[in-house]
Amino acid sequence: MVLEQIQQVNDIKNIDPKDYGVLAEEIRQFLIDKVSQTGGHLASNLGVVELTIALHLVMDFPKDQLVWDVGHQSYTHKLLSGRKEEFDGLRKYGGMSGFPKRRESSCDCFGTGHSSTALSAALGIVNGKWLNKDDSLVAAVVGDGALTGGMAFEALNNAASLKRNFLIVLNDNEMSISRNVGGMSRYLTKMRAGSRYNDLKNGVVNTLNKIPGGDNVIRGLKKAKSSIKQIIVPGMLFENMGITYLGPVDGHNIEEMVSIFKEAIHLPHPVLVHVITKKGKGYPYAEKFPARFHGVEPFDSMTGKPLNQKKTVTYTDLVSKKLVELGSERKNLAAITAAMADGTGLKAFRRHFPERFFDVGIAEEHAVTFAAGLAAAGFHPFVAIYSSFLQRGYDQMIHDVCIQNLPVTFLIDRAGIVGGDGETHQGIFDLSYLSHIPNMHVMAPKNGWELQQMIEFSADVSFPMAIRYPRGEAYTGLEEFKEPICFGKSEILYKEKEIALIAAGNMVKLAEQVRKLLKEQGHYVTLVNARFVKPLDEELLDRLIPTHSCIVTMEENVLNGGFGEHVLRYLNSRNYKQAFLPIAIPNMYIEHGSLDILMQENGFEAGKIVRRIQEKMAE
Amino acid sequence: MVLEQIQQVNDIKNIDPKDYGVLAEEIRQFLIDKVSQTGGHLASNLGVVELTIALHLVMDFPKDQLVWDVGHQSYTHKLLSGRKEEFDGLRKYGGMSGFPKRRESSCDCFGTGHSSTALSAALGIVNGKWLNKDDSLVAAVVGDGALTGGMAFEALNNAASLKRNFLIVLNDNEMSISRNVGGMSRYLTKMRAGSRYNDLKNGVVNTLNKIPGGDNVIRGLKKAKSSIKQIIVPGMLFENMGITYLGPVDGHNIEEMVSIFKEAIHLPHPVLVHVITKKGKGYPYAEKFPARFHGVEPFDSMTGKPLNQKKTVTYTDLVSKKLVELGSERKNLAAITAAMADGTGLKAFRRHFPERFFDVGIAEEHAVTFAAGLAAAGFHPFVAIYSSFLQRGYDQMIHDVCIQNLPVTFLIDRAGIVGGDGETHQGIFDLSYLSHIPNMHVMAPKNGWELQQMIEFSADVSFPMAIRYPRGEAYTGLEEFKEPICFGKSEILYKEKEIALIAAGNMVKLAEQVRKLLKEQGHYVTLVNARFVKPLDEELLDRLIPTHSCIVTMEENVLNGGFGEHVLRYLNSRNYKQAFLPIAIPNMYIEHGSLDILMQENGFEAGKIVRRIQEKMAE
Repeated sequence: MVLEQIQQVNDIKNIDPKDYGVLAEEIRQFLIDKVSQTGGHLASNLGVVELTIALHLVMDFPKDQLVWDVGHQSYTHKLLSGRKEEFDGLRKYGGMSGFPKRRESSCDCFGTGHSSTALSAALGIVNGKWLNKDDSLVAAVVGDGALTGGMAFEALNNAASLKRNFLIVLNDNEMSISRNVGGMSRYLTKMRAGSRYNDLKNGVVNTLNKIPGGDNVIRGLKKAKSSIKQIIVPGMLFENMGITYLGPVDGHNIEEMVSIFKEAIHLPHPVLVHVITKKGKGYPYAEKFPARFHGVEPFDSMTGKPLNQKKTVTYTDLVSKKLVELGSERKNLAAITAAMADGTGLKAFRRHFPERFFDVGIAEEHAVTFAAGLAAAGFHPFVAIYSSFLQRGYDQMIHDVCIQNLPVTFLIDRAGIVGGDGETHQGIFDLSYLSHIPNMHVMAPKNGWELQQMIEFSADVSFPMAIRYPRGEAYTGLEEFKEPICFGKSEILYKEKEIALIAAGNMVKLAEQVRKLLKEQGHYVTLVNARFVKPLDEELLDRLIPTHSCIVTMEENVLNGGFGEHVLRYLNSRNYKQAFLPIAIPNMYIEHGSLDILMQENGFEAGKIVRRIQEKMAE
Repeated sequence: MVLEQIQQVNDIKNIDPKDYGVLAEEIRQFLIDKVSQTGGHLASNLGVVELTIALHLVMDFPKDQLVWDVGHQSYTHKLLSGRKEEFDGLRKYGGMSGFPKRRESSCDCFGTGHSSTALSAALGIVNGKWLNKDDSLVAAVVGDGALTGGMAFEALNNAASLKRNFLIVLNDNEMSISRNVGGMSRYLTKMRAGSRYNDLKNGVVNTLNKIPGGDNVIRGLKKAKSSIKQIIVPGMLFENMGITYLGPVDGHNIEEMVSIFKEAIHLPHPVLVHVITKKGKGYPYAEKFPARFHGVEPFDSMTGKPLNQKKTVTYTDLVSKKLVELGSERKNLAAITAAMADGTGLKAFRRHFPERFFDVGIAEEHAVTFAAGLAAAGFHPFVAIYSSFLQRGYDQMIHDVCIQNLPVTFLIDRAGIVGGDGETHQGIFDLSYLSHIPNMHVMAPKNGWELQQMIEFSADVSFPMAIRYPRGEAYTGLEEFKEPICFGKSEILYKEKEIALIAAGNMVKLAEQVRKLLKEQGHYVTLVNARFVKPLDEELLDRLIPTHSCIVTMEENVLNGGFGEHVLRYLNSRNYKQAFLPIAIPNMYIEHGSLDILMQENGFEAGKIVRRIQEKMAE
């Protein structure tokens, strides 16, 4: 095994170049073996095995620094930097992260998770090194999908003023998670089809030289307002921004990449090397279905089939179904996603109503304001974005949607704790960032049935609305409670006295368990499904106050700025003086791990909550 | 007066073309007269008089729709659409907004205020019209400065797929508020210097035709991988994105603009018309000092001098001074702004330490992550951005700065109510959006002295910190209280019993007035300068609880998710059962108007607060 020779960072430099191909294959097999057992990101990692090898051959870690955009493609980098033994704990609680982490290794100089941040971060590092007169290398690897994100462009724009080397590797696999969209994608396609830099340059010049007077043309064009580079360099878009473009180069040819990287790192300004890779490379199932093998649960590596064959209906599936149903009834309903048509369930809507479906690419800011524009033109757009990614559209929700009070519905998937992706992906801030925006309204469903009802309800309102729901299987319990949705009103599941549990969304299920335990201990317990986190159901709170001596809120969101604080403020305004207990996530980031462990670690366990209630009542 | 013929929208179409020039001059004089009395945006409006006339000649309002990016340059549009009489109330409470507002006129199809949103909004409107088979025109006017904002790029990328006309007017005055920076700016400069489209095209083709075999070259190049368009169209950056480029055209020549717009609106896809304008055009003082005449207070139109000559020291001035002082002591201190070197006071730092100063352009997302990168490279960056603009960097603060707990200090200017700019610019959410981010810490100074102390303090900490302070004159009162800053600790100004006023930042001044009134009524009043909104000074709260029967928080931020809710939650956790009153801004947007009126309207008035405290204590 060549791979056995790699125990720590820079060991790769002792490998015989003739063994690079074997090494790449061994790494691929290693990744398939490990990820098939632990789950994780596969297709993107298989695509960059050779690219990572080439970078490790050219760079000197940890002195040189490498920022991976998004970061889920950093497995080979982790392996080559001495973390091979950690792969059994990949994405597990306390184990190795699936993303680069500064605290994990000195070879991870900057943590990532969301798209399009790497150029900005690396440019900061480059400038820092420049100020320190440190001429070690800084590189960023960014996917073609991430280039549609506005902040990548902001960084390219800013990079133009840099007076030292900065290696930008464009990892072009024609995909973000799904297939890419937009002008940038079309442009890259054109370049991909083009010949390589040198060939093209020589080709054109040779052609001109063969023509009588052609050399004059070359000279003439060189002197013309637009230089001859315009016709010989395919990457003019980058050149126009002040970034030297090199490529395209085959991302599975280590030798070629090493040679072009060595050329690139000697230029005294930013250079973009365009590397063409194949997502899922070397694993036929992943090559064929790169989106399915983007992020995977454990699977049988021989068949590519998931080990857990249980077919579950997810919240996302229900969104998918409901939107198609509503879309055929309502011609003014539109659906918008930011490169997540699969993940958010909008694929079906796209199939049925392609003209009313908009995938704007990885561009959450634009997605939100675009939705506001559609709403201003008389449509009711549904914007489906993951909770942690919608953080990118925070200003646009305030500025474009809510100030103008436009009818845009946000379908916020992956709200709450998401599991293996860790800190960057936990959807634990949305109740806080949404509920202080004037004119925004926020709902959370207790189960799958209710999510569908809420979507239907929101299609009828004429103002901004957000519906947040968790990742994964839709809860099918509590279906006996089917009170129709009414604006600003909670649903009372059990009406008693003494203790009132007011739970938001996903927490209703847990609250019911808490109620059972409390009942067993002889307590009387009212159970309220909040439904609306904003506006608060003040009328209900007024009714609870005289008959309850303990009010408990439950939410899968951080404590600060969340549902509990808002309820407490209202209770205070009504001079409620008895016990109040807000159950929520402490004000901390939540690392990666299984959902069960993370829920427990954060106190979302019926027994623990019962104890906290008892303590509070005893105070 | 030609201008008298303009009473309502489309009246311009009855003006004799030979009078256009006179009209433009009359409009200019009108704007100078009015803005010199009311204050407002001047230079940007003077720059687009002819451009707006040309658009009104070509478009048919309100059927056609026009989105102004940022929107402070829409005065001529307001004038031509029948709002001439409203100019006396410009930016006054209850009067005409300085920005487009949907509720103000059917000719304002979309409200703006922040930069770089217009393309996204207009693209939404265009798509809505397309779905409705409505072929009326949609145009967006976007400045060259706004093009550095990532979401403008996201919109351009998305526009490439559009199959109908969409007129993008690039209003290129080589400025955002200050001079522009970055690759895009350099690119536009190149294009500005270039000849116009047709001339250049004909020139090159003619040259080639004169050369023996040149026609073959033309054919050859046309067939080559890169088309000949590459050398003949200066706007290839846009063409590469799938947007037809026309221009540049003289933005003060109405006839030329009308003719190019008429050509542009017949193309069945997005077209960008590059219009060159001069900021401040026609008013010598504004032409010479466009940044000074960007947003102005009332001034003497004859001399260009402000009417209120009183020289005040602003919070911004103190930031400016302090950063230079710290910058010379600490070589690892860097300063970053997003196109606001003047407004945030970083100009002096730039002058002293150009190599450690970074103006990244209108690019708040990039600014924040770039700062995180600099911090990862061992620097301590100070990022100075206005409160409402920093909303753009919300995700980056969570994802890049705070998860990694990097030492970045945010200097948040224009926090709280800002006055005439209205809804989009009020800095009334920052305490909410900052205080739920784990690892973020938030300070607010009571006066100018304290702001400087806080900046100095923050330079020594190794984690994320935000300091928010208001627009305008630094408060010089309460300077007898000079307790050194200590992490997480409040400053007690008066220690008594009964009522505790805990005020954040700017509110300490008002709280002192409240205290005086309460004292006159025989109450005992403790006055606390919170200093830290996060973390809470829990130790102090523990000490206040036993000796006070009413605790009042005061903050210039919305109620939801703000300081008051956090304090209340802590008090609840300690079983404080007596009166608590949070004084804050109701959960609503705040329109434009003078600071005094807006403060009063939002309840920030000592007498009112005293009455509320009395009511609360009587409950």
